[in-house]
Amino acid sequence: MQVHEPVFPPTSLFPSPSFKLATSAMDIESSSGPAQGGARAGGALARIWGRVKGVPVMAKDKAVEFATRVRKLGQDDPRRVIHSLKVGLALTLVSLVYYVRPFYDGYGISGIWAVVTVVVVFEFTVGATLSKGINRGCATLLAGALGIGSQYLACLFGKQGEAIVLASLVFLLGATATFTRFFPRIKARYDYGVLIFILTYSMVAISGYRVHELIQLAHQRLTTILIGGATCVFVAIFVCPVWAGEDLHRLIAGNIDKLADFLEAFGGEYFQCLDEINEKSKTDKTCLQRYKTVLTSKNIEESWANWARWEPAHGRFRYRHPWKQYLKIGALARQCAYQIATIHGYVCSDAQVPCAFKRIIEAPSMKVSSEASKALRTCASAIKQMAEPSCASLYVENAKSAVEELKAALGAAQLDDSVDLLEIVPAATVASVLIGIVDRVEEVCEEVIELAKMAHFKAPEKQQQQQMLHRGAVKPVVEGGGETVSVVVDVPALADRAECCTKTTEANSRAPRPDTDPPMK
Amino acid sequence: MQVHEPVFPPTSLFPSPSFKLATSAMDIESSSGPAQGGARAGGALARIWGRVKGVPVMAKDKAVEFATRVRKLGQDDPRRVIHSLKVGLALTLVSLVYYVRPFYDGYGISGIWAVVTVVVVFEFTVGATLSKGINRGCATLLAGALGIGSQYLACLFGKQGEAIVLASLVFLLGATATFTRFFPRIKARYDYGVLIFILTYSMVAISGYRVHELIQLAHQRLTTILIGGATCVFVAIFVCPVWAGEDLHRLIAGNIDKLADFLEAFGGEYFQCLDEINEKSKTDKTCLQRYKTVLTSKNIEESWANWARWEPAHGRFRYRHPWKQYLKIGALARQCAYQIATIHGYVCSDAQVPCAFKRIIEAPSMKVSSEASKALRTCASAIKQMAEPSCASLYVENAKSAVEELKAALGAAQLDDSVDLLEIVPAATVASVLIGIVDRVEEVCEEVIELAKMAHFKAPEKQQQQQMLHRGAVKPVVEGGGETVSVVVDVPALADRAECCTKTTEANSRAPRPDTDPPMK
Repeated sequence: MQVHEPVFPPTSLFPSPSFKLATSAMDIESSSGPAQGGARAGGALARIWGRVKGVPVMAKDKAVEFATRVRKLGQDDPRRVIHSLKVGLALTLVSLVYYVRPFYDGYGISGIWAVVTVVVVFEFTVGATLSKGINRGCATLLAGALGIGSQYLACLFGKQGEAIVLASLVFLLGATATFTRFFPRIKARYDYGVLIFILTYSMVAISGYRVHELIQLAHQRLTTILIGGATCVFVAIFVCPVWAGEDLHRLIAGNIDKLADFLEAFGGEYFQCLDEINEKSKTDKTCLQRYKTVLTSKNIEESWANWARWEPAHGRFRYRHPWKQYLKIGALARQCAYQIATIHGYVCSDAQVPCAFKRIIEAPSMKVSSEASKALRTCASAIKQMAEPSCASLYVENAKSAVEELKAALGAAQLDDSVDLLEIVPAATVASVLIGIVDRVEEVCEEVIELAKMAHFKAPEKQQQQQMLHRGAVKPVVEGGGETVSVVVDVPALADRAECCTKTTEANSRAPRPDTDPPMK
Repeated sequence: MQVHEPVFPPTSLFPSPSFKLATSAMDIESSSGPAQGGARAGGALARIWGRVKGVPVMAKDKAVEFATRVRKLGQDDPRRVIHSLKVGLALTLVSLVYYVRPFYDGYGISGIWAVVTVVVVFEFTVGATLSKGINRGCATLLAGALGIGSQYLACLFGKQGEAIVLASLVFLLGATATFTRFFPRIKARYDYGVLIFILTYSMVAISGYRVHELIQLAHQRLTTILIGGATCVFVAIFVCPVWAGEDLHRLIAGNIDKLADFLEAFGGEYFQCLDEINEKSKTDKTCLQRYKTVLTSKNIEESWANWARWEPAHGRFRYRHPWKQYLKIGALARQCAYQIATIHGYVCSDAQVPCAFKRIIEAPSMKVSSEASKALRTCASAIKQMAEPSCASLYVENAKSAVEELKAALGAAQLDDSVDLLEIVPAATVASVLIGIVDRVEEVCEEVIELAKMAHFKAPEKQQQQQMLHRGAVKPVVEGGGETVSVVVDVPALADRAECCTKTTEANSRAPRPDTDPPMK
């Protein structure tokens, strides 16, 4: 919605350096030409001339700006360009069918439905295309059959009665079918089908054809829709397919990553009054903003999950991949993002908290947020690689023990007499919300582990496990009495981040872990 | 997605009391009939018979359940039923046109486009219908003209070249137009138009007609689309219209109301450990949940604002009503809702905060939330009634002075030695986030006042103002140096809530107000 002003004031004779060279000869001519006419007339002429000359520059600027936007749009997601070419391809393919003489002789003008089907059904993702195509096909079949039945029925009422019966039926079915579109479940999955049902039924019922003509028409329409639909599905699946499921998969992983970005950058940003001003501060700030898209991604998640259900098995996804579980994870990530939004308000505010108090909570707070960030990061990369998030629980446990440290630090702070409650409340709030975030992060991790189970994500590679057996003493995971008992292993140089292990301390034991690391800077 | 089990186990002979009476005679017959066949065969038969008998009960249950859902859907928003009837009406109207003999003789099968247009264009709101109708009409006109031009051009290349040129043009225009659909602005407003452009252009270019036939075809298609579109717009506007703008207006007011609901109920819920358990607790809890829909209403707000722009002046809304301002208010309300979500977590959690500390912050916290709630409530009802939110600023000022009291209470708490920081952190966090919420509420109020200015909401009625002049000393509002100077007036028994006034204390003066009320229970 930006209004782009021309780059120079229209009255200027020398619009822009790049243009000056090309028009300098004309400038001299025009400025020396009407010298006898007096300064006023000359000024007006010059102004008009300046404006006329401005047009190509403006046009050029607009064109450059437009080209930049087009390029950006394509660069942001190159699949957009590919999709556009695919639509062109499908249209050309279907029009070739149209040019085949025997086909044209058989179907004539009805062949146009194939083109209509391609234009209307072809969507960005395979799932959406399949959903629309199948909806369109089934609805046409059903409505066609019903329409022909209605014509039979209407015939029984004589010439006058026929029109009345048909009009009533159209009213009745049109209204009823429209009402079903308000059912949330039908709205989500069959909205387009109901629309096509009303469309086809009305067409068949109103057209005024005799029944034998109708059957031919219905047959032609169905065949051409099948040709159009098949072309769409063929091009969508076999030419650089875009899978809604894969997009959902990546979106959820990306959203969790964005939350991790915030938690990773947050400590450095919030406690920076204590350190020398970080040079990376500016780049960190974009990290602190990224979570915002998570707040409003509900609708797109739901659409993609809906389309993903229509998709056949592809790549790493089986037919009955647990897409609903992604929605669950997405909802939890969003709840986490709400709390992050609250913390973000405190990071941005300029309320001065005494550095002495900040220093007390700095180390444990940073550890909480960094461990929570690592847990989320592990979940995100586990989803991306479709591997079990083996380290996530460890990081959650670390975060929890850091929470205990943070609580201890808060408890100890009270003893200090120099602390004024009113001044420290903002920082205490940040700490408290951070503690709440750890609970959300734990829930996200649990649901990601559940997803890994449901979708049979692969276990960490055997080689890796064996390496671990050599480095530390791994006791195999024992399942007893519903509680998972497992063991911490310290493997110093395995992953890029701190430690990596199979699983972690005894479930639900809240005792401070003996091997908590010194707080990270 | 609920799976409804049959009400009784299929093996039971006596499915349900209501069914028992009706079938008792048959039961006797069937159970006494095959007595010679032994217990086993009898048991199997009885099971099968039980199942067969179960079918009508199941069918009845399903039907009842379905009817309940249909009724609920209709009761939730009766306009849904009306909309369905309107679609039926528009379809019947357009089919009547189709039955008119001179029209049919002229257009023949092309008349079907009128029906297609009605089905495809008729939407729930007037704005959406207009948007689709205008998009469809303009796109058809443009694409038809371009298509005929392309046919002229293609003719120049001979019989063989024609097909190639046309196929290339279809590919090129199809791909380009599809790409433009990715521009966010085009996506939001002209998506359907671009779709129809591709559709019509392909149809015209591929159809293989001669040019003079094409012009006739284009003419017919345009006329029938106009008839269909006009029918839609006529029915949409003149039969119980649903205006997107009005819905947006009500949605935004409703969202603000939901936030006010939470803030009103929150104090009672959070501090209830101090009072006897409230009997209204259960109803209050639904008040605490309502804000959740605000978190995810962004998409619907944007769609409605988009459609509202297409709507003509209607009811209390002029043609250029500032719909964008509603989006601004909606976004601020959502930010407020994020913070409320954080507080809600603390209300639900069972962390035990010492009652002594809660008692210290109870009064000012409840005053903050109740005044903020009143400010929001005033804004919401001002939007609903399209009147200036005259009292909102006063309530914001009250809330701010309550914030000062709350801060003072927090400052005083430090002096007490019995307070343990760790234990009071959750309550302090709630207080701190509450203080943050007041800032958001102030922003919402400012934008609502801005909306009132932009949309020329009516000032509080003259009678009311005169009443006030009699009761208190009103100094007229003075605008000086960019700052609005105004005056507090105490009018005890005017509105239903506490005080009501014209405007409030000097802008930006942060000094505690002298006339702060005693904290409300």
